[in-house]
Amino acid sequence: MKYSVRILDIATRSGILLNYLDARNIGVLDGDRVQLINPKNSLAVTAVVTTTSTLEGQGTAGVYRGTNRRLNLTEGEEIEIREADRPASLDFIKKKMDGGRLTKEETLTIIKDVVNDEISAAELTAFITASYINPLDMEEVEHLTRAMVETGERIKFASRPIVDKHSIGGVPGNKISLLVVPIIAASGLKIPKTSSRAITGAGGTADLMEVLANVEFSAREVQEMTEKVGGTIVWGGATNIAPADDRIILQEYPFKIDARGQMLASVMAKKYAVGANLVVIDIPVGSHTKVPTVQEGRKLAREFIELGERLGMKVECALTYGDIPVGYSIGPNLEVREALRVLEGATEPNSFIQKSVSLAGIALEMSGKAARGTGAQMAQDILSSGKALEKFRQIIEIQGGDPKVKSEDILPGEHQFVVNAPASGYIVEMNNVSLITLARLAGAPHDRGAGILLHAKKGTLIKAGEPLFTIYAEREWRLQKAVEEGRHLVPVLVEGMLLDRVPSQSEV
Amino acid sequence: MKYSVRILDIATRSGILLNYLDARNIGVLDGDRVQLINPKNSLAVTAVVTTTSTLEGQGTAGVYRGTNRRLNLTEGEEIEIREADRPASLDFIKKKMDGGRLTKEETLTIIKDVVNDEISAAELTAFITASYINPLDMEEVEHLTRAMVETGERIKFASRPIVDKHSIGGVPGNKISLLVVPIIAASGLKIPKTSSRAITGAGGTADLMEVLANVEFSAREVQEMTEKVGGTIVWGGATNIAPADDRIILQEYPFKIDARGQMLASVMAKKYAVGANLVVIDIPVGSHTKVPTVQEGRKLAREFIELGERLGMKVECALTYGDIPVGYSIGPNLEVREALRVLEGATEPNSFIQKSVSLAGIALEMSGKAARGTGAQMAQDILSSGKALEKFRQIIEIQGGDPKVKSEDILPGEHQFVVNAPASGYIVEMNNVSLITLARLAGAPHDRGAGILLHAKKGTLIKAGEPLFTIYAEREWRLQKAVEEGRHLVPVLVEGMLLDRVPSQSEV
Repeated sequence: MKYSVRILDIATRSGILLNYLDARNIGVLDGDRVQLINPKNSLAVTAVVTTTSTLEGQGTAGVYRGTNRRLNLTEGEEIEIREADRPASLDFIKKKMDGGRLTKEETLTIIKDVVNDEISAAELTAFITASYINPLDMEEVEHLTRAMVETGERIKFASRPIVDKHSIGGVPGNKISLLVVPIIAASGLKIPKTSSRAITGAGGTADLMEVLANVEFSAREVQEMTEKVGGTIVWGGATNIAPADDRIILQEYPFKIDARGQMLASVMAKKYAVGANLVVIDIPVGSHTKVPTVQEGRKLAREFIELGERLGMKVECALTYGDIPVGYSIGPNLEVREALRVLEGATEPNSFIQKSVSLAGIALEMSGKAARGTGAQMAQDILSSGKALEKFRQIIEIQGGDPKVKSEDILPGEHQFVVNAPASGYIVEMNNVSLITLARLAGAPHDRGAGILLHAKKGTLIKAGEPLFTIYAEREWRLQKAVEEGRHLVPVLVEGMLLDRVPSQSEV
Repeated sequence: MKYSVRILDIATRSGILLNYLDARNIGVLDGDRVQLINPKNSLAVTAVVTTTSTLEGQGTAGVYRGTNRRLNLTEGEEIEIREADRPASLDFIKKKMDGGRLTKEETLTIIKDVVNDEISAAELTAFITASYINPLDMEEVEHLTRAMVETGERIKFASRPIVDKHSIGGVPGNKISLLVVPIIAASGLKIPKTSSRAITGAGGTADLMEVLANVEFSAREVQEMTEKVGGTIVWGGATNIAPADDRIILQEYPFKIDARGQMLASVMAKKYAVGANLVVIDIPVGSHTKVPTVQEGRKLAREFIELGERLGMKVECALTYGDIPVGYSIGPNLEVREALRVLEGATEPNSFIQKSVSLAGIALEMSGKAARGTGAQMAQDILSSGKALEKFRQIIEIQGGDPKVKSEDILPGEHQFVVNAPASGYIVEMNNVSLITLARLAGAPHDRGAGILLHAKKGTLIKAGEPLFTIYAEREWRLQKAVEEGRHLVPVLVEGMLLDRVPSQSEV
């Protein structure tokens, strides 16, 4: 039967909205599937049905934007709708629920249906939950990685090596890509870096780079820019590289899970799809990160290396200290300012510089540019010489930003609140999770100027009344919220501090 | 901040639709939660956010109907929206994913959020998947049952006993409630039966009863009708009894799963909520049903009995033969006609009558109305005497139907196709799943006249060319579809039939 189309623009939703009488007539219930056919060009997709008794009259059909991507319908055009079979993906997901192992073909079928929005968010969540409880083995992870690559755009460079770098995350202020990418590119290697925006963090690398330049480019543009200047720092979400991954992450988000198999596949699919064959993985280890112990970090490292071997990629991992923030800044503008200062010649903060040159050094050694044991020094030399700054400016320029930008141009939010040490003593703990929460309360990452600037780090002796950190915000109410709700977060702990005061019964 | 409300009427969806700029301003992403406050009456609910760039302008907010149920907003009114905390339910679901056991309070929190649409369909699916893979133990099942009861309407009768009956399902043509309920009510016992509509079947008891009377009543009306005539046969979905269950079943549907713990809780919560203290459970056993072996049937029976004890209810289970349909009819009108004929005095089909009086007899014995071993005979007497028919007419009348209805008034669809035996021999197999599929292809349960009438059952000797079964449909195209797509289903297998013919290579 034919229906008149209305386009429904709702993010992260897909499928078709039908009047319940039309649905009954077609023979489907809410959650069933129909085949949608564009009679103009014979494009056909399967879509999950939702029903309404008022929003669509009989004879009209609301097609969600995500579903229309592959149909190319415009408002008012005609569409043909038929009952569709239940997708085989659901049986494969059920197999995983029942503890089975998925074949290459089964995995590809699921991931194709994910990318084409032919299975619902709830059905995808069942797959994620099943794979979290019944973990994927390394062969299944390889299948998943390849399926993620095959269902998205790919970049093929004419020559190798192609370097890439990834940080597992969980550490605030981890702005090292802003140094690593220009250092690598300045050495003559190619590094087409795609990054994420923060979902639970205070600023992903893409959020940071967006302070300086555009970050939304197609895979083809990433390739061209990398050919020209040696590197990019773009948002992966815009490239359509491994698009299944974004959908998986969105469904993992409510439960704060990061199923091992999906995580390995997610990272490596993006590296594989951009053509990288030399990959450095930064695994921050610490009690408030995703990897609490060195033992677990080593295990994860071995898994990355094995998956790399299966895919024909050379992988090295660096276990890094992740118990406290990298550098002194958290939040887009503050972090970008800190990175620019180092590129401009600042020799502090040491933690940030050392981590960046160490990771860049590993890639330089893997590529043969530097001999074993000399990579970090070569990276430091590139940084100190100003070549990394020059390269970073080329990258900013090719991504449409202002290459003349200076660190002093980048300002934090105008509203600020200084938190002073309530007692004298050593700073004995910094809580990554609390620091990120505080930065987010202040508005990061959406408000680029929001964030936290630390004035001292773990191990420092501080006197009562001296500043511990400053909270910055672009909006007054955001600052207030961060200050009020932040009182109980204790992001920085000074040895002599009272953690709580319990009054005697009589005083209550 | 305040927004102007638009009501979004989309079934099975809930939450709020915001312009992405408003969402960013509030500080939330797709999938995050906000608190919605009706400033008029201070009602507040939590809702999951979806975003749009065109469907809502800045300053307007689309509130899904399901979410508005607890806010009572009308179009154009003002609503206040604030960022909300992540619900604790998500942590409890995560705990179940990680193999933990849920406490009574944790379970209640999850089920409250399910009923109030404060967790999304995807999040509920994660809970279902986790409970399927890491099964609930009996204590957790008890918690779940009580939580389902507490979050819905309840019926409290002044006196007991209150009888109830449930069939696990999976057997086509299982219309026995249409006999059991009037027999029990005619004996003087009370049986406030709530039933389901078919989701994957060819007709649930509620679909059948709807041929004769209204089935949508509130819990209070069910109570009043039961007080007056002794019994009801209504659709549970309209009563708001154990409403969490419908939402769980909807999410299980794509995967055709029926997690043991959820199933036990689902059945017993409905019985508990209507105040039943004597419960008979019909467990059909057979290779094409939900319970393939007698051993598994006994295990399930013990679980129902134990759960009943925990809830203070007496439960008996009957393992029944479930390998072939009950009676000769499948589909609403055909089944209702067959049941009315038996109530009117027909002494066939034996399978249908025997099963019905056996189950009714168990309840009569449990209540003390009949001595052990004499319940089935008492049920048969009530049936043969015409008292069950008289009672059924009272039930039809009080539910708004025509009490003078006769079996010959109920007609199957006018389009029919007779399938003849392709060979002579004994009928060696009937496939429940194929029969249901065929009835659904013909339009059941939506088209009340659609279905299948069997002309012979398993074990019968049949000659080539004699009718095996007739497919009925209300619409010609539905009949064609059933006939065409049904060719490969082989719902009835005659010993001498060729199952397939494989031509030699040269003939291809």
